[in-house]
Amino acid sequence: MQHASRRFICLVVLILSSSIACAQTVGKPEDQVRWRQGAYATLGWSMTRIKANVDGAFNKEQVMQAANVIQAIANSGMKQLYGAGTETANGFHPTHAKSALFKDGDKVGELAKDFVQQANEMAKIAVAGEAAAVKTQFGALGKSCKNCHDKYREKD
Amino acid sequence: MQHASRRFICLVVLILSSSIACAQTVGKPEDQVRWRQGAYATLGWSMTRIKANVDGAFNKEQVMQAANVIQAIANSGMKQLYGAGTETANGFHPTHAKSALFKDGDKVGELAKDFVQQANEMAKIAVAGEAAAVKTQFGALGKSCKNCHDKYREKD
Repeated sequence: MQHASRRFICLVVLILSSSIACAQTVGKPEDQVRWRQGAYATLGWSMTRIKANVDGAFNKEQVMQAANVIQAIANSGMKQLYGAGTETANGFHPTHAKSALFKDGDKVGELAKDFVQQANEMAKIAVAGEAAAVKTQFGALGKSCKNCHDKYREKD
Repeated sequence: MQHASRRFICLVVLILSSSIACAQTVGKPEDQVRWRQGAYATLGWSMTRIKANVDGAFNKEQVMQAANVIQAIANSGMKQLYGAGTETANGFHPTHAKSALFKDGDKVGELAKDFVQQANEMAKIAVAGEAAAVKTQFGALGKSCKNCHDKYREKD
């Protein structure tokens, strides 16, 4: 039924304005929470890889792989994984998102936009392959993650 | 100590051949299992999104977002998340990888190569934005996932 009404709303929107294409929202709240936890774990892996490269032997190929993953996830529209019911749902584990995250739309949007910009910049810098520049951008990117975590993520 | 000896080995390799750059292996076995489970969950989200678009209203932007995530993860060198000790380690949950996965190097490599090719093709087709072509490629990509799952993944 939910699916049918979503399609109906899409249809109405399409009739009202042919320039608007409806994005499909997928998954139950538990799926959305599990998927976002999965995406954050994948970001965590990728950040850890970049850090290992700037702290140790630098492998440009590995840094590019990690930066591309971060860029793709940053630009994937993760907002869709914060749908109704995900405030308290369990994914792989209970969500770490604070309730304020679901209320502070504008502030969260700003922080998300900064993260996307830093991720895009990291992908560009990774292609150039200069270890020092990657290290600097790793700091800026990490800060954009931390700015959101500090405000909207429960401590482990 | 492990970190130090890895750096030492890298150094030796670099001295022996300046053309070889050492890829950093990161994470304890439990981290690697959690990261790979996270990456597979992110692939699952992305496949579900593409399916929703080919079954329902088609949104090119969303399909591209999902296809880019799949391509980046497919090309990320996930092999590094199957290190020693990950055969039985717990990540978000116990691993679903069968023990044969850690023994059949060549066969796993072939299946992984097919997945990467299908993921690259999907990203290309998503840019063109033809729903019918995306649907066909979604089938081919899904088959490349299933071929590996059937052989090397325990049922849920």
